[in-house]
Amino acid sequence: MFKSIFENVKIKHPLVQNITNYVTINDCANIILACGGSPIMAEDENEVSEIASICNGLNINAGNLDDSTVRAMIISGKKANEINNPIVLDPVGAGASKLRSQTNLKLLNEIKFSVIRANASEIKSLASGNMSTKGVDASESDKITEYNLDETIKFVKSFAEKTNSVIAMTGAIDIVSDNQKTYIIRNGHSMMATVTGTGCQLSAMTAAFISANPSRILESAAASVCAMGLAGEIAYNRLTKLDGNSSYRNYIIDAIYNLTPEELDKGAKYEIR
Amino acid sequence: MFKSIFENVKIKHPLVQNITNYVTINDCANIILACGGSPIMAEDENEVSEIASICNGLNINAGNLDDSTVRAMIISGKKANEINNPIVLDPVGAGASKLRSQTNLKLLNEIKFSVIRANASEIKSLASGNMSTKGVDASESDKITEYNLDETIKFVKSFAEKTNSVIAMTGAIDIVSDNQKTYIIRNGHSMMATVTGTGCQLSAMTAAFISANPSRILESAAASVCAMGLAGEIAYNRLTKLDGNSSYRNYIIDAIYNLTPEELDKGAKYEIR
Amino acid sequence: MFKSIFENVKIKHPLVQNITNYVTINDCANIILACGGSPIMAEDENEVSEIASICNGLNINAGNLDDSTVRAMIISGKKANEINNPIVLDPVGAGASKLRSQTNLKLLNEIKFSVIRANASEIKSLASGNMSTKGVDASESDKITEYNLDETIKFVKSFAEKTNSVIAMTGAIDIVSDNQKTYIIRNGHSMMATVTGTGCQLSAMTAAFISANPSRILESAAASVCAMGLAGEIAYNRLTKLDGNSSYRNYIIDAIYNLTPEELDKGAKYEIR
Repeated sequence: MFKSIFENVKIKHPLVQNITNYVTINDCANIILACGGSPIMAEDENEVSEIASICNGLNINAGNLDDSTVRAMIISGKKANEINNPIVLDPVGAGASKLRSQTNLKLLNEIKFSVIRANASEIKSLASGNMSTKGVDASESDKITEYNLDETIKFVKSFAEKTNSVIAMTGAIDIVSDNQKTYIIRNGHSMMATVTGTGCQLSAMTAAFISANPSRILESAAASVCAMGLAGEIAYNRLTKLDGNSSYRNYIIDAIYNLTPEELDKGAKYEIR
Repeated sequence: MFKSIFENVKIKHPLVQNITNYVTINDCANIILACGGSPIMAEDENEVSEIASICNGLNINAGNLDDSTVRAMIISGKKANEINNPIVLDPVGAGASKLRSQTNLKLLNEIKFSVIRANASEIKSLASGNMSTKGVDASESDKITEYNLDETIKFVKSFAEKTNSVIAMTGAIDIVSDNQKTYIIRNGHSMMATVTGTGCQLSAMTAAFISANPSRILESAAASVCAMGLAGEIAYNRLTKLDGNSSYRNYIIDAIYNLTPEELDKGAKYEIR
Repeated sequence: MFKSIFENVKIKHPLVQNITNYVTINDCANIILACGGSPIMAEDENEVSEIASICNGLNINAGNLDDSTVRAMIISGKKANEINNPIVLDPVGAGASKLRSQTNLKLLNEIKFSVIRANASEIKSLASGNMSTKGVDASESDKITEYNLDETIKFVKSFAEKTNSVIAMTGAIDIVSDNQKTYIIRNGHSMMATVTGTGCQLSAMTAAFISANPSRILESAAASVCAMGLAGEIAYNRLTKLDGNSSYRNYIIDAIYNLTPEELDKGAKYEIR
């Protein structure tokens, strides 16, 4: 079923606007190209409304937070909402500082997001206002495991209901839910955590997936999460003894580039609850 | 003939100032190093006049457009003009928003550019004030083909005359002209469009080429366009089954690093009209 | 002896705040991950005090100099000083413009740095107020050679005394000194100069090393300098005929990822004076 979703990305080449941090901006552009989309990185508040209106979707990554950029996020988000374009929020580091928490809450108040893609600590911080994040990675105690899975699914579902968004909480196990239906995804590899910005890349690619499939947001988000995890597996299998996290980064994007809709369907490891 | 131009880059190690977007800034620095130049990425309006005066040339990439950066572009450009340093303009996304179109027109009014390097849609937007660009890539209808080649050459020549700049319009076929003499270049590979910023990289490298050869702007721009295309071909031939656009990006810069002046001369595919 | 220092990085996973330039920000994050640390790139003046307080150390790279970022550097630095977190300064391009020279002197006045990591021209500019840098690379006349080594060591020691910091002056030969004790390091490869930001990467990794070993600043800085040089050697040996500076960049970070504490101990080439 993910096959037709991924095919749509490759056929429609959705134009995806990104307002994103500068740490991983190049990787975000290249992974959108790799999956079949077309990225435009535009964040000046004087042009973002126009840019949003020529695009098929929007990716807001809150890892870069100066005042002007936050205004640009809100302008773009409102425009995308107005023309019914799908939007992804990646609340990078929510919980690591008051500024990040408040900015993300502000974004949630002003914009209707189709998908919120984040790690467990970031989602928990958004949901509770609690600030316990260790930097930009998930805290040990927040990590999704087989032991806390049921409880975490319940939590994700209730946050999906509260925000009226699809929640994609990613980690060792990924949970993607719109409250009605939940995908539990077991693709991926632990080495992905050694590459900066695999989360940012996933959010960018998810924006491309939902931009090409605006009427199937939940399935598209789940397909994108599976694709990223599968790419992490394929790339891991390709590593030689001398390769490390830098080659791995390239191989993940390469794997997305070479992944076919059929391979995604075949390699996706998920259950639905 | 391109041989001596490329040799000059390798002998003189021109210091090239870049004011450029953050999506591809790292690749721009690395490709300047790869071809033999020395990059400095300086864009604070409080230092750019000094920096411009110690450099051999300037690359202005209009993909990043906050007010302060645009002021820095104009200060740098005026200083470079004053000391007769060559300057490249890359009008990224001209036509995609009013801001981009107006900023590029302002730059054209205030600064004399040696070379304007852009895709067909961007050049057309600059020439006409028309806004039909689909994001940062050339529109389907604007693409250079064998069928519209004569007409496009005529258009490029008239824009070269109007701006008194060398125009490098790049795409499947590249056209480099100073109105008197026109290079039609058939190097390159279509997969280059799957890597973000190959255009930005080409503009940065072109700045290095003309900085080392300030009295041969047209030939240097044509040599740089051929070098980039040839690197795209060499890199493509190197791809394994598992490689995708991310490895391709590395291989293109690698190919520039290893390219010799003799190989450039031999591999350049162009006709002169 | 470097073994236990590097082991601490791998065991403690220090959280390192970076305020750094956008040219090499992605590489800085990935090399911190490669060595075992955890990076957070936070530079908004409204959050940096909080971020500094949850981190184990700080890396200030002065390659990006807008007013707001400089204020963020000072806020972060003062907070890190207050809680006794170690701090690295990388004064990129000190001497290339008045702004860079003045900003770096301001940082030195306001913040106590544990380590200052720079090339010879940058250190000389900081020490003298002289502005003779050619861009962001060391001038020919400033380069460390066997012929000026004794004199340069003397100079580095006196600057270490003056600043009360460990000075890591890097080049063909590296000198790391706290005035009492000096490491002369002969790891590395000349090809490292063809990759943009190997210096920035070294500074970022050094911040991770000293964050995990706050009571052994001198040894940790020397260990980090040896590790970077050793990675440059390992990566060089891995190059194929088609590889250039872009693959080399990946291989250096890969080499750090795969380097064991034992291998660092064995491969480090230094003498102590």
